[in-house]
Formats: sequence, structure tokens, C-alpha cells
Amino acid sequence: MTQGLQAARYLTGDKAGLREFLAKFDVFLFDCDGVLWSGDHLFPGTVETLELLRNSGKQVVFVTNNSTKSRADYRKKLEGLGIPSTVEEIFSSSYSSAIYISRILQLPENKRKVYVIGETGIEQELRSENVPFIGGTDPAYRRDVTPEDYKKIAAGDESILDPEVGVVLVGLDFHMNYLKIALAYHYIKRGAVFLATNIDSTLPSSGTLFPGAGSMSAPLIMMLNKEPVALGKPSQAMMDSIEGKFHFDRNRACMVGDRTNTDIRFGLEGKLGGTLGVLTGVSSKEEFVSGDVRPHAYLDKLSDLLESE
Amino acid sequence: MTQGLQAARYLTGDKAGLREFLAKFDVFLFDCDGVLWSGDHLFPGTVETLELLRNSGKQVVFVTNNSTKSRADYRKKLEGLGIPSTVEEIFSSSYSSAIYISRILQLPENKRKVYVIGETGIEQELRSENVPFIGGTDPAYRRDVTPEDYKKIAAGDESILDPEVGVVLVGLDFHMNYLKIALAYHYIKRGAVFLATNIDSTLPSSGTLFPGAGSMSAPLIMMLNKEPVALGKPSQAMMDSIEGKFHFDRNRACMVGDRTNTDIRFGLEGKLGGTLGVLTGVSSKEEFVSGDVRPHAYLDKLSDLLESE
Repeated sequence: MTQGLQAARYLTGDKAGLREFLAKFDVFLFDCDGVLWSGDHLFPGTVETLELLRNSGKQVVFVTNNSTKSRADYRKKLEGLGIPSTVEEIFSSSYSSAIYISRILQLPENKRKVYVIGETGIEQELRSENVPFIGGTDPAYRRDVTPEDYKKIAAGDESILDPEVGVVLVGLDFHMNYLKIALAYHYIKRGAVFLATNIDSTLPSSGTLFPGAGSMSAPLIMMLNKEPVALGKPSQAMMDSIEGKFHFDRNRACMVGDRTNTDIRFGLEGKLGGTLGVLTGVSSKEEFVSGDVRPHAYLDKLSDLLESE
Repeated sequence: MTQGLQAARYLTGDKAGLREFLAKFDVFLFDCDGVLWSGDHLFPGTVETLELLRNSGKQVVFVTNNSTKSRADYRKKLEGLGIPSTVEEIFSSSYSSAIYISRILQLPENKRKVYVIGETGIEQELRSENVPFIGGTDPAYRRDVTPEDYKKIAAGDESILDPEVGVVLVGLDFHMNYLKIALAYHYIKRGAVFLATNIDSTLPSSGTLFPGAGSMSAPLIMMLNKEPVALGKPSQAMMDSIEGKFHFDRNRACMVGDRTNTDIRFGLEGKLGGTLGVLTGVSSKEEFVSGDVRPHAYLDKLSDLLESE
């Protein structure tokens, strides 16, 4: 955290400072909720700000830990909020996981299958990278455990434990159950790599919190006494995946976010050229100015970038 | 751990030592698997040893962390293995939980209901103590979460969040799902006491391991950043419950077990007069003699107590 001890520079209303800051970067990575919108409410000026950046030749990337949606689903969500985007601009933890498995993990020829705990977003992204998988939304796994299962699992029966599985990928699964956890445990004990799309313990919804993707990994972490490699922010595995796709110069990239402990940390640990905090979400001015993890600069709100015009 | 630094005394073949040891106690608390039997195999001499103790006027108590079975179910299991017993001699984590809730927790008049994650063993024991409960094996909770659920839970709707729930009790549940975890989380956030029958992360079955009761609490522990009060060994809440029922003199009680980190620790931290290790289970002679947690005495096997005759 090289930049952790400098006070963040306040750029709202500082036209020259804004211009100088923007000129340093070719790529802007955006956290979404708390930056572009909050819940279902689009912040005024979001669309114009993104337009300004695109018109200045900047690459825009939307980075989300949401693993239940594919990039195509997420693009629809952005569209529904009024934000024009392309699938190529979206980077979700499910896509990050697929990229990590297909391009970074070196799996033996006979261990390329992924056992998925999660919903359709993960499946779509694995398909987009031609990664074979089992589990996921397959109704065969949405059932009670039986006495027969115990025996088969204990015996390593190939009708229940696929010998080609070399990765267990755990994301948010609204149909999680005892059987799925038992199978994931045994795959990992037999040598499969333990991955999580992200480890956010809770999922914000309807103005309160529900079990998040991390809650699906929690039983496995306890049983195995082992942490998964997490592919969402602030894990650098996600940054590696983003770089694996966009091949950008980290010095010329800036992470924009509202949370110091995920977004800003993600950018700082990724040694990006810049990090930009906005005060429309979780972290406060005090955290940006004197917290343990500080962005290079901060704004009252994202659309203050329009003042550079 | 007052006795932790003395070397355990080896009593196998030491007739005088055995007699002296037995004379010190009126009550023997037994761990079961690894002491009386292993899996489905009853150790030779188990029945005769228990008979010897009973004939000498000793109270015998079987202490198990298994929460899926009621005491009546567990007695049938003992009987199936050939061990005569009465329901009164059995102390399970489900019964321990029921006792703890009914006799130790002081709940306000309008907060006496328990929301259960678990199977029928817990329900039977709560009924035996006249503790009202919801959840458990009720099929209404064995379903997918719906968009309506999110809204109702967020709004604190009484049709889904019973305002009389003052305790969440989490045990091994083979039908655990997203909805159950979401409800437990919200009950605890609204002030309910967070209890677990036990926190063993795994369940031995068919010669291998499956998710245990602790794996049911794991998502909640991660979401809440809070540990439950656990009622199974080695938690002293279980010892308090046992004492609450049998009113024995701790100086005149001995815990017998095969595991130093659960059974022996349970007895030592409970300040029982004695702890007795047996070498027919998990812990080794080295652990008994020079480990961090040492029993007062140890035997090759439980039936060596017969040599006192």
C-alpha cells in the first residue's frame, strides 16, 4: 500500500486538478453500486460522465462481484438503469472465475472439469470460455442427501464423484444444500482446486442483507480449514484476470470506487497508477483523508468529473 | 487446566491403582464412539464394564454431541449395539440445548420461542422441556427463497419472522437451505440468542467425513462475525446442563474419553475430580503422557477397569 500514507487529493471543483488527473489514465475500472447508482437509483450525471470518458478515448470497465449474473445479464441491468454499455466492458466475478480457470490455472488434461456451486451466471461464463462443468443449476443436485449417497461418496463411486473434476468453484447459490456441500468437500479432499467467485459474506437486497457468496464457502472453509482462492474484489486474482483480458498498462489505469476496504484496496494492491474515491457510497471523507487505506484522489460524486470540461 | 502438567497415570494392569481411582468417583461421564464402540463395532468387555460400575453404585452418563437423535433414539442405538441403558442415562447435545434454554437462559415472557435449524432429535428434546419452537423439520421451510421472501424479511413481516422468537438453535440439518440461513440471520440481528447444539465441523459416516453441525453455523458466524454459544463438548454450557440435571458433586465425577481436545478438555475445564483417557480412539499415548491436555489417568482400553475386580 505505497500510497496509503499520502492524504487523498480532493478534486471536486478543481478544474486543473481534474484535467491533470484524467490525463494520467487510459483505463477506468468502475465499481458500480455506490458509484454509478445506489440500489435502483441512477445518480444524476452518471451517463454523461461515462460519455465524457469514452469520448476522450478512455477504456471503461465495470467491475462487479455479482456472480449470479453473466455479463450479458449485467449489461441488461445497466441498460435498465439507463447506462449504455457493451458486454465487453463488463467484468464480473463469474467471468473473472472463468478466465482464471481457462487462462491462468494449469490443469492436467484429465482434470479440466469444474464442479460448480452457483447459479446460471457462472455457467454462462464457463461456457463462454469453453470450460466443462457439472453441478450448478442441474436439478440432479437439488435434492436431499440419501443413505446411498454416503456410501457412494465414501467409496469414491464415479457415478457421484466425477474423476475429471479438478476445480470446485463456489459462488452465490440460492439452491445450496447439504449434498452440494458434501460433494464439494470430497472433490477438494481428492485434490480439486478450491475457488470462490467472491467471499462477500452478505448480499444487499431490498434494503437489508441476505447470505452472500462467502456464506456458501463458509462450511467448506470450516471443514477443510482452508481458504479458497477468491476471484472477486479485492482479490488480485481478479485484477490478473482483468489484465489477462484487456492487457492494459497498470500505470495508466485508475480504479474508481466508494469503499476503501474493497475497491480502493483492490486498486492499490494491484499497483494501478491511480485510485479515485467517491463519497456517494460506504466510505466517508475521513476514511479517504486519514484512514488506513486512502485513494490517490476523491470526489463528492462521480459526476464532478464533468467539471473538467 | 490445573491437571494439564502432571503426567497421566497408566492404570492398565494396576489393580490397586484401579481400585483407588474408582473409589474416588460416584459419577462416570462417557464419551461413546472410540470408548464404548467404534463405528458399528462394540468393544469386547464394554457391557461388563458398565455393569461393574452400575453394580458398584456408580451413576453412568452417556454424553454425545450427536444432535440429530433424541435420547430415546440414542437409547435404541445403544440397545442395537447390545448396551443396556435408560433414557435418563443419556445426555445428547440436543437435550443439553433444550435444558440450557428451559432452565438456564432467562428469556423474556414474549420471546420464548426457538427457531430451529436441525432435525427431529432437537424437536423431541425441546418438546420434552416444553419449549415452543418453529422451523426444524417443518416442510414449510424446505423450499426455495422467493422474491416475496426478501421483501417480507426486509419489512420484518410477522408472517415470515415470528416476533416471539428469542433463540436461534442451530444443529445438524440435512435439509439446510438458503431460506433457513436467511431467517436465522435476521432473527439473530433482531436480538435472538445464537445457540449451536455443537460446532463439530464434520460428521463421521461410512468411514469418511460429511458436513457436521458446525458447518450449519459457519455461514451465520461469517455473516454476523459472531460465535454461537455451543452446547456440545467441550463447551462448559453442556457441563452446566448435565449438572443442572444430575446435581452431582464435580469432585466425585470422572469424564472418560478418547480425545484430549474435546473429552478430556471438557472434564478438566469443568473441574471434575477426574479424567480418564482410553487408547481405543483418536488420541495417542504420547498425547496422554506429554500433550498439552492430559487426563489424570489412562488405560489401553475401557474394559481394563475389569481388572480392579
